[in-house]
Amino acid sequence: MSNIEIIDEFWFYALSISADHIEMTEEEVFHMFRVLRIIPDTRVLVTDGKGRLAHATITEIGKKSIAFTDIEVEHIPQYSYDLHVGIAPTKNINRFEWFLEKATEIGIGRITPIITEHSERKHIRPDRLEKIIVAAMKQSKKAYKPILTDIMNFESFVAQKPMDTSGYFAYLGKNSGHLKNELGTTNHHCVLIGPEGGFSANECLVAEKSGFKSVSLGKSRLRTETAGIVASQIIAMHYE
Amino acid sequence: MSNIEIIDEFWFYALSISADHIEMTEEEVFHMFRVLRIIPDTRVLVTDGKGRLAHATITEIGKKSIAFTDIEVEHIPQYSYDLHVGIAPTKNINRFEWFLEKATEIGIGRITPIITEHSERKHIRPDRLEKIIVAAMKQSKKAYKPILTDIMNFESFVAQKPMDTSGYFAYLGKNSGHLKNELGTTNHHCVLIGPEGGFSANECLVAEKSGFKSVSLGKSRLRTETAGIVASQIIAMHYE
Repeated sequence: MSNIEIIDEFWFYALSISADHIEMTEEEVFHMFRVLRIIPDTRVLVTDGKGRLAHATITEIGKKSIAFTDIEVEHIPQYSYDLHVGIAPTKNINRFEWFLEKATEIGIGRITPIITEHSERKHIRPDRLEKIIVAAMKQSKKAYKPILTDIMNFESFVAQKPMDTSGYFAYLGKNSGHLKNELGTTNHHCVLIGPEGGFSANECLVAEKSGFKSVSLGKSRLRTETAGIVASQIIAMHYE
Repeated sequence: MSNIEIIDEFWFYALSISADHIEMTEEEVFHMFRVLRIIPDTRVLVTDGKGRLAHATITEIGKKSIAFTDIEVEHIPQYSYDLHVGIAPTKNINRFEWFLEKATEIGIGRITPIITEHSERKHIRPDRLEKIIVAAMKQSKKAYKPILTDIMNFESFVAQKPMDTSGYFAYLGKNSGHLKNELGTTNHHCVLIGPEGGFSANECLVAEKSGFKSVSLGKSRLRTETAGIVASQIIAMHYE
């Protein structure tokens, strides 16, 4: 019997996982084969980002294809809360990417890039952002991949808030309560984070009419991406 | 009388501020003059990073020198808490720089880069890191500049914890209480954040002997720089 080497300091990502088959993208296989130089007889952890975690041993690996044996599938429980952040992408996309990475590490369910009146960026590259999310998910060993939805207008976004979801928008202007003290009894949360110029007065009104409450994220003046990270952390902490 | 234009969306940094003189670095002056193209008769906000905030009108500005008039000095109260983070610089210095920027935005008093057993980086460029801290302080309109101390060994660092400071070290291993529930009655806090490989067993013992308590930062597995940001946020929130 050959020696099995175990890699468990990070997880891999699969499109689908079943008891007898793991389907990966060619890109993931290429990365495992060429960059990490993983060889057969390595036992790895693979998640599908939908709650499945497979422990599996590689039998064959090449530039484009991979085969596994001894697949054991574990079901990882979902977070005890559901967080959706609607956030204006930053002018410097790097900052937005950091938000995605950190929010994934801390724990977030869904991200929607929103276009607001003062938005400095109206286009994103979903494929690139998706890769950042997957990398952060694997690195932080999470079995649920945050969903990145299509970019959309602020008005359309706030209009679609489900009834059972508590909505908040970060606003420095008036005497808003701290998000930590405003969390309702539901565990479905949706937080709106504006661009560097903030939400317009009209957007604040529209948000309030759609059931979003204005909240403070603390005394500090935070950049957009920091506000997104801080809001994610405040909500994650509430459930810890 | 000439028209005075006001810039208040961010602050400038001065080495010293008094009622009749503001001393700036040539670099700051050059940046104001060449990059931002600020002209005389502009009223700006300038902080010395030690609690002084000057409202002042520029009378002359060139590549290297600047002169002000109508200087009004305001004293900004200090934070209600004092946070010192000892953190292992990351292999990719970019990640460490992000920690510095975000911790400055959220609110931190002092940062000490530490060298630990599993450290991947033992050298930093303080001048470069200092610039990141100053930029974040100006952008987030803070009148107190976090102090970046010299890099030092883990053992020397933990040995110098003052008696009146509560010490914590982020540790995933054992059943540590969440930092938010472990904050003592003092408002002086010192948090240790290890490298990607974590603290060694010996370092944990040394930290405990020196009065540092092992704490959890939550359920998620966080990168070093994220752990630093999250710890800063947990402590800032405690005082909000």
